Amino acid sequence: MKTRQPKIVVYSPNQAKDYENMIRKQGYTNVFSASSPAEVKEIIADTEILLCWKFPLHLLSETDSIKWIQSLGAGVDDLVSSPHVSKQSQLTRIVDQFGVPIAEYVFSYFLHFNQRITAIQSAQKEKKWAPFEPELLSGKTIGIAGLGSIGGEMIRKARAFDMKIHGLSVSGKQAQFVDKHFHPDEWREFVKELDYLVLVLPFTENTYHVVNRDILLAMKPSAYLVNVGRGQVVAEDDLIDVLKSGHLRGAVLDVFEHEPLSEESPLWEMPNVYVTPHLSGISTPSRVGHFFLENLKRYINEEELAGIVDRNSGY
Amino acid sequence: MKTRQPKIVVYSPNQAKDYENMIRKQGYTNVFSASSPAEVKEIIADTEILLCWKFPLHLLSETDSIKWIQSLGAGVDDLVSSPHVSKQSQLTRIVDQFGVPIAEYVFSYFLHFNQRITAIQSAQKEKKWAPFEPELLSGKTIGIAGLGSIGGEMIRKARAFDMKIHGLSVSGKQAQFVDKHFHPDEWREFVKELDYLVLVLPFTENTYHVVNRDILLAMKPSAYLVNVGRGQVVAEDDLIDVLKSGHLRGAVLDVFEHEPLSEESPLWEMPNVYVTPHLSGISTPSRVGHFFLENLKRYINEEELAGIVDRNSGY
Repeated sequence: MKTRQPKIVVYSPNQAKDYENMIRKQGYTNVFSASSPAEVKEIIADTEILLCWKFPLHLLSETDSIKWIQSLGAGVDDLVSSPHVSKQSQLTRIVDQFGVPIAEYVFSYFLHFNQRITAIQSAQKEKKWAPFEPELLSGKTIGIAGLGSIGGEMIRKARAFDMKIHGLSVSGKQAQFVDKHFHPDEWREFVKELDYLVLVLPFTENTYHVVNRDILLAMKPSAYLVNVGRGQVVAEDDLIDVLKSGHLRGAVLDVFEHEPLSEESPLWEMPNVYVTPHLSGISTPSRVGHFFLENLKRYINEEELAGIVDRNSGY
Repeated sequence: MKTRQPKIVVYSPNQAKDYENMIRKQGYTNVFSASSPAEVKEIIADTEILLCWKFPLHLLSETDSIKWIQSLGAGVDDLVSSPHVSKQSQLTRIVDQFGVPIAEYVFSYFLHFNQRITAIQSAQKEKKWAPFEPELLSGKTIGIAGLGSIGGEMIRKARAFDMKIHGLSVSGKQAQFVDKHFHPDEWREFVKELDYLVLVLPFTENTYHVVNRDILLAMKPSAYLVNVGRGQVVAEDDLIDVLKSGHLRGAVLDVFEHEPLSEESPLWEMPNVYVTPHLSGISTPSRVGHFFLENLKRYINEEELAGIVDRNSGY
């Protein structure tokens, strides 16, 4: 039996109950979960700790007891920008959990393009034996925009594939691990030599539409774009125009300006565009539950939390 | 002008002329090429050096002048087993050139399965937004049968993906780089814990059909098989039966008992089988030309050649 039982509310459209059970198993008894705005409205009063994903933020006005909000994801743009989130409450995000899955996602698509697996599958259907020389990652140049823990894992994989590695970041953290480092005022220089541009950036006022027509046209026509950060970083209409013009060989998009991606979006039907439903760094109880439980121990013991969000930088 | 101009014949069904030009560019003038048995029959007399791929071996009886045969590939089973190849001539194969392309091929298919890229493509066609949790390579166990330079490159990639690595080899070379090492009398033990079995073995009398029904059924039903070595290592009919029974989740086959794979083979139409046309370590002038030219310098200088084949072990 825990000495202190703060009221914990879990909110997640799909997995709230899983998280609740996981937390209860550790001896916490004052835990509730909700999967819809109507449900959470019933239980939000007197909540001390909120563990949430896509929380209906206007409902925060129903309570002033919240002391700590733990996001279930790495990106917290919605929480940082909301007027409903009290600056008095602690805000934390998941860190160091998504590097491996996101890097595996990214390299799977790089290799998929190079090995022309879609074409191989078609040839197989026709029982056609037609050898070709697959392109290699070895010797190619990858540019990673955003050098946090996810970018760091990408660097590690890119080394094993003997790629040249360029990086762009605000802080210069991990700059010593890339072959060339660029600052955010050097986007055009950064992109121009890349074979693969991977965006792992958070959505902040500084990154909004930073990858626009200018930057896309500064890329090599033969380059690929992969976005696993936030959709708002790319000017989606510009990207569509540029791809339609034949510039860029392909794009792999796991994030979009509006999610789920509207059925009206031309991206769904564009050749050489892969649309994936924001799954590269999907939050699961097994993946992020451990992180929250560790943080909860720290909270109870009044120690500093992991993943504290700097509200000025926005991540 | 070179001091000595040995007669060099290049034989390759598709790229003989490319190799000839590459060799001539280095100052060798006594160079000829052929793409068919009829062509090579005209020029084979007095040949000192033969650079070849799929050479019509019975034609070697037309000459007794050949002192050195350089294979354009890593596998030399046809040359080692042929009674037409004089034991007096030196026999070399390409080494240390195929690790990178073959490892990239292998990891592309691992990741392709885990990320369910084929299913993602179907969902995209239907404009369906349906997130799921992709499986990860991280934490999975790979078994590499054959720990030469190609197996070594596979080990390096597998480390970057945080896999457990089991290896099987005759010599025990590179055994210190795997987590568990097995000898060829331990096949059943070797395969039983694997999530991915990768065959990089040469075809010798010891490896013929070594992966048979018994070994396949000793594997986990959820495992994948990848063959990038030689088709004869796998008892193809056994593999077909085992896959049809639902054991094994998939197979990626770049090599076959008879190549090109016959249109009659059921492998073409089996779900979860990927048939690729022996391209994972394809020989190209840029890739192996350099290797031959270095060896040619050594030959002229009467130094020891690289890639000398041990006719007893067969590779």
